[in-house]
Amino acid sequence: MKLTRRVKDILANYESDNPGTKANLARILMEGKLGGTGKLVILPVDQGFEHGPARSFGPNDAGYDPHYHYQLAIDAGCNAYAAPLGSLEAGAGTFAGSIPLILKMNSANSLSTQKENADQAVTASIQDALRLGCSAIGFTIYPGSEAMYNQYEEFRELSKEAKSYGLATVLWSYPRGGAVSKDGELAIDVIGYGAHMAALLGAHIIKVKLPSAHLEQAEAKKVYESKNIPIATQAERVKHIMQCTFNGRRIVVFSGGATKGEDAVFEDARAIRDGGGNGSIIGRNAFQRPREDALKLLDRIMKIYQGRE
Amino acid sequence: MKLTRRVKDILANYESDNPGTKANLARILMEGKLGGTGKLVILPVDQGFEHGPARSFGPNDAGYDPHYHYQLAIDAGCNAYAAPLGSLEAGAGTFAGSIPLILKMNSANSLSTQKENADQAVTASIQDALRLGCSAIGFTIYPGSEAMYNQYEEFRELSKEAKSYGLATVLWSYPRGGAVSKDGELAIDVIGYGAHMAALLGAHIIKVKLPSAHLEQAEAKKVYESKNIPIATQAERVKHIMQCTFNGRRIVVFSGGATKGEDAVFEDARAIRDGGGNGSIIGRNAFQRPREDALKLLDRIMKIYQGRE
Amino acid sequence: MKLTRRVKDILANYESDNPGTKANLARILMEGKLGGTGKLVILPVDQGFEHGPARSFGPNDAGYDPHYHYQLAIDAGCNAYAAPLGSLEAGAGTFAGSIPLILKMNSANSLSTQKENADQAVTASIQDALRLGCSAIGFTIYPGSEAMYNQYEEFRELSKEAKSYGLATVLWSYPRGGAVSKDGELAIDVIGYGAHMAALLGAHIIKVKLPSAHLEQAEAKKVYESKNIPIATQAERVKHIMQCTFNGRRIVVFSGGATKGEDAVFEDARAIRDGGGNGSIIGRNAFQRPREDALKLLDRIMKIYQGRE
Amino acid sequence: MKLTRRVKDILANYESDNPGTKANLARILMEGKLGGTGKLVILPVDQGFEHGPARSFGPNDAGYDPHYHYQLAIDAGCNAYAAPLGSLEAGAGTFAGSIPLILKMNSANSLSTQKENADQAVTASIQDALRLGCSAIGFTIYPGSEAMYNQYEEFRELSKEAKSYGLATVLWSYPRGGAVSKDGELAIDVIGYGAHMAALLGAHIIKVKLPSAHLEQAEAKKVYESKNIPIATQAERVKHIMQCTFNGRRIVVFSGGATKGEDAVFEDARAIRDGGGNGSIIGRNAFQRPREDALKLLDRIMKIYQGRE
Amino acid sequence: MKLTRRVKDILANYESDNPGTKANLARILMEGKLGGTGKLVILPVDQGFEHGPARSFGPNDAGYDPHYHYQLAIDAGCNAYAAPLGSLEAGAGTFAGSIPLILKMNSANSLSTQKENADQAVTASIQDALRLGCSAIGFTIYPGSEAMYNQYEEFRELSKEAKSYGLATVLWSYPRGGAVSKDGELAIDVIGYGAHMAALLGAHIIKVKLPSAHLEQAEAKKVYESKNIPIATQAERVKHIMQCTFNGRRIVVFSGGATKGEDAVFEDARAIRDGGGNGSIIGRNAFQRPREDALKLLDRIMKIYQGRE
Repeated sequence: MKLTRRVKDILANYESDNPGTKANLARILMEGKLGGTGKLVILPVDQGFEHGPARSFGPNDAGYDPHYHYQLAIDAGCNAYAAPLGSLEAGAGTFAGSIPLILKMNSANSLSTQKENADQAVTASIQDALRLGCSAIGFTIYPGSEAMYNQYEEFRELSKEAKSYGLATVLWSYPRGGAVSKDGELAIDVIGYGAHMAALLGAHIIKVKLPSAHLEQAEAKKVYESKNIPIATQAERVKHIMQCTFNGRRIVVFSGGATKGEDAVFEDARAIRDGGGNGSIIGRNAFQRPREDALKLLDRIMKIYQGRE
Repeated sequence: MKLTRRVKDILANYESDNPGTKANLARILMEGKLGGTGKLVILPVDQGFEHGPARSFGPNDAGYDPHYHYQLAIDAGCNAYAAPLGSLEAGAGTFAGSIPLILKMNSANSLSTQKENADQAVTASIQDALRLGCSAIGFTIYPGSEAMYNQYEEFRELSKEAKSYGLATVLWSYPRGGAVSKDGELAIDVIGYGAHMAALLGAHIIKVKLPSAHLEQAEAKKVYESKNIPIATQAERVKHIMQCTFNGRRIVVFSGGATKGEDAVFEDARAIRDGGGNGSIIGRNAFQRPREDALKLLDRIMKIYQGRE
Repeated sequence: MKLTRRVKDILANYESDNPGTKANLARILMEGKLGGTGKLVILPVDQGFEHGPARSFGPNDAGYDPHYHYQLAIDAGCNAYAAPLGSLEAGAGTFAGSIPLILKMNSANSLSTQKENADQAVTASIQDALRLGCSAIGFTIYPGSEAMYNQYEEFRELSKEAKSYGLATVLWSYPRGGAVSKDGELAIDVIGYGAHMAALLGAHIIKVKLPSAHLEQAEAKKVYESKNIPIATQAERVKHIMQCTFNGRRIVVFSGGATKGEDAVFEDARAIRDGGGNGSIIGRNAFQRPREDALKLLDRIMKIYQGRE
Repeated sequence: MKLTRRVKDILANYESDNPGTKANLARILMEGKLGGTGKLVILPVDQGFEHGPARSFGPNDAGYDPHYHYQLAIDAGCNAYAAPLGSLEAGAGTFAGSIPLILKMNSANSLSTQKENADQAVTASIQDALRLGCSAIGFTIYPGSEAMYNQYEEFRELSKEAKSYGLATVLWSYPRGGAVSKDGELAIDVIGYGAHMAALLGAHIIKVKLPSAHLEQAEAKKVYESKNIPIATQAERVKHIMQCTFNGRRIVVFSGGATKGEDAVFEDARAIRDGGGNGSIIGRNAFQRPREDALKLLDRIMKIYQGRE
Repeated sequence: MKLTRRVKDILANYESDNPGTKANLARILMEGKLGGTGKLVILPVDQGFEHGPARSFGPNDAGYDPHYHYQLAIDAGCNAYAAPLGSLEAGAGTFAGSIPLILKMNSANSLSTQKENADQAVTASIQDALRLGCSAIGFTIYPGSEAMYNQYEEFRELSKEAKSYGLATVLWSYPRGGAVSKDGELAIDVIGYGAHMAALLGAHIIKVKLPSAHLEQAEAKKVYESKNIPIATQAERVKHIMQCTFNGRRIVVFSGGATKGEDAVFEDARAIRDGGGNGSIIGRNAFQRPREDALKLLDRIMKIYQGRE
């Protein structure tokens, strides 16, 4: 498969990685309808772990079956499908080679009472990623949480091992816990900070939430204001996040959050595109809709990333 | 031994497992009176660890002898016998090859003062399971407990090793601790969540308690109510649990709980059968009755699973 | 599954083995039409490696397909199926749990020019045996060959590892090479010697060829003659072999050799039975006949071992 | 040395252990004046660690010399001598082969401030036990302590390793810490529970304190009372403990506690004997008396176990 | 990428492999112009090692540059590119993700004086394959050579490790050395034997030379003649080879040999296609021709496999 110039340029940014990791990044970047554009739409299904099965799959109960999500990701032309160990195992044989897989290595759940010290359990191993044919591992950090240093160290170990085997890494960076306020979790300075630390931790693909214009940290606020860093529009904020992640040298995708109206979803996608972001990780907004609606929605998002809308 | 079509269909769901693990699942599914039906009755005897010997074996003191339980499981035609290390060691030579064994890897005890952080001690190793000729390991998690993430990580390590050697895994998922209320331990949303996480952790066989119609988590409650998920009858709740465990792609057995009247036991079995569950793990209701009564009770339960009552 | 008294008595001879190994021996001894009798008929298909595919499967070309042999062993009611790595891999998923498997660990081939130093290549590992769900490993030694000491040491390593994981071992002891004459390969003193060394090497099941009345070693000959050890009839020679293998404390099965007339096969089985041998490993005489003929032949052999003919 | 029928019967209960472990148990059971009777008197000297040297050896200062205890155990005809690493090292050369040794692997000390979370330090390794020629390792657990699960896991690791090398294990089960009251430490239900857990953890020899008739746990109390489990006399309580340890399938010895009058010591021994216990671990009551008194006292205890008093 | 039914059917034959290995086989089978057809054309460039650079690349000196071969394989639409360590390293970064790679693990060279004991040096590791992003490892055995048993054992170790990491294996089976005559190297019985052993060794893809109708081994000859095994035409011989490799359950590709006329190359391809073979490994006939000629030749071969010529 001939890589596009755009994909080659992106890969060139990963200049310390071995060809195995580059090949896996290439597999993700060349897959599906956005294959070759440098844009990505990834289907993640770890909400069953995070919020429980009924909240996740009750709205569209076909989603209780792990095969449903594999097939949805393939039929929609996504770049990759991300899920925890058990879900991947339940379909990895049937769908071997059909779509790049991202093994989500750690997961939290809503039964947990942790707040300031929000953490996750590491529920899979690099060996699992290899035997299941995955292209990357996924890992979540909670910048701000009292557990964050331990999380960073867990990621260091997994990432080191993953890179040595030619796997890529996707880092979910979700500020939370510690002294981070509820508004602060989405603040542009905090999200930018979390994205930057993800880059510093050596992640290949960084996943953050779409930031608000709120500024959480006093010292940071001074700089944003004195330097007039433009953060008024969503596209400006995306552009700033790209700046925070090695000025565009790392792939960044943005999460869609809870189910919402289609227009809001498309608006997000346009802002990500216009700000120079690499794409979306869209879970609930895809799999909680009926299959045909989900396929249409994903198709339109991809058209937006292709600049066709 | 020719496997039945039903057993082959169940095995096909374990598509990422090696033939060794499939063979051990097949051994359990093909054993005893329910052999080949896809239904299971497993005898577990870890209550001595959990509640102490007198509470467990005082009601029928033949049970102080580990050989008693091996023989009971064999004579009753159970699919497997599950117990902690010492109990299995005390009879594994005499009964080698006579019934599939499940080595219970961790155990709690009632001397513990842990509540929110309920935990268990890991008291056996994979090498023990292999040298004792076991077909599977058993492990308990307490979803909700502050210790849960650590438990999930213990299971990850044991499970990874077990699978590499062709062993199967049975995961006891008992919500407890943390913010889970006493009623919440049996709530349908919480049991369903615990069962789902067991599946996500990669368990082959999942064991949960029979859920009540109570709804514990506010966010989940909204979904159950708005989507009219049917949970009024026990059979409906069992059906929902099967949905929560990959829509029937994983074997789920239900525990009988404390000793109770025969009619209640049979009613449970019928609900499990009618809801599409795979069977029962029956401990105290079997070994705390006199041997002849236990054999009769187990025989009738098996008849229910065979659809003969 | 309740073991028979006979099988329990046999297992009692393996008194230093862990319950895992005993359970695997029990699985083999309790399987198929001879299950529980202490007699065995094992289907081995490693002749493709030893003599090439056309010589092995040309006479009945259904045998080119590895599934054919699995199904033949199951349908015939054999105790176990033995084959090299690739053959087992090609069917271990489909037939998981359907019949005890013996992974043949080493193999020679007829392209080899080795004579005095006849050897084999070790082509599989214990980890392979476990992931494929095997009950035992099989290994061939050539007592007499200049390579034998190295072979014994290879077996030591594999056997040690196998026993620690609860696997059983089957040792093919085929005198060959070195100063052993062509007649000597079947001589009663040499076969007895080879069988005895197999027992001394710690094998659980020993496989030898049916010996002739020839005496190869001068010093041995003196003893056989001066002590009037009865070796005139085949049954007497089998009885002597059982004596050479710890006086009946080890399971011994005899190989059928090249395809021959049915009557000769049945005569062999009767001699093995009358001499107290444990059974037959029948390869070419089974799979080189058309399937229906093979099933009939194996059925009749089993009837002979059951004492019904 | 021909084992007695009684010792062979005891060894038969250890049916999953390898012959090495059985041989070490046999060595202990066949040693000294009680050799072959199935009864044991073991000399333990770990009180220096537990209570300090002056409290331990001040009363009879010959005991400051480790050789003193070796010689005392040998001269008294004990079955084994148990001590921490340093003590054993100080005499293991001189007395090599003179008496079975038990290496005490963990120890607490009275400088510790731990209460609810009472714990011990692991101060020796299996390799130490082997190089010193020990027959067994000794380990203490504190059922009830907040540290107990960790202790169980430490024992799992040491026990697994010990068994693989053919060593036996002696588990001191002393309920303490957590919610266990002072009376509860000796309560029959708690001691029985602690003894049962020791058996479940896979210990070969279990050491507990002589229990009182107190009942600590409310749920257990109901069973003892409703089932009229006889616990009025010391002998009855010993009998119950034997029941709690696999109905007599495990060796149980009882500790003597602090120094007391000779009559009390003899009374204890008679109760242990009459209740079917296997013997005593007698430390302070032996080594804190002058040597001649100690020898006389031990001799008389052994006579009691022989049924001669 | 949606797999075709044909590719899914082929993958189903690898029933003991983990999803990782299946995914890598799928990547090879879905790549290039033949992607999805179940047919393959692989470009191998290890002749520099085997015959020296001038003999290999003199005819078309663009081939001295490793990038040339990567680009040729990609532009021609091959399924994979196979080469030794150094060649792959020289382009794996530039071409990461552009084409499935096969790391040739061992190589011989024409400076060697080995004849009867023809061998190869293992020049790469599994870790190399992973860091370079390879989908498979390649290995050569010389059935017949005095070194063959050692080669088989080298492959066992590499293959076991490769499979555990989800890599596929390609086994070059080239009878040579020992008593194999020059004609024998291509004899149908010998090639069939070599192909069969490759399957038995657990290879996923088997590479052999196109066999002649010569029969080398006397015992085999009898069978071919008595059973009238059809081997007169090249297509018949290919068909027989497919039979020898588990009756079509393994992928087999045929090597083109030394540079020859285009018509001969196409004739070979048609025979492979008509005999049911999976395709060609074409090295010298591709890279020793000028690039445009090579592209045309490869295109036409692929058209033949597509049944379009």
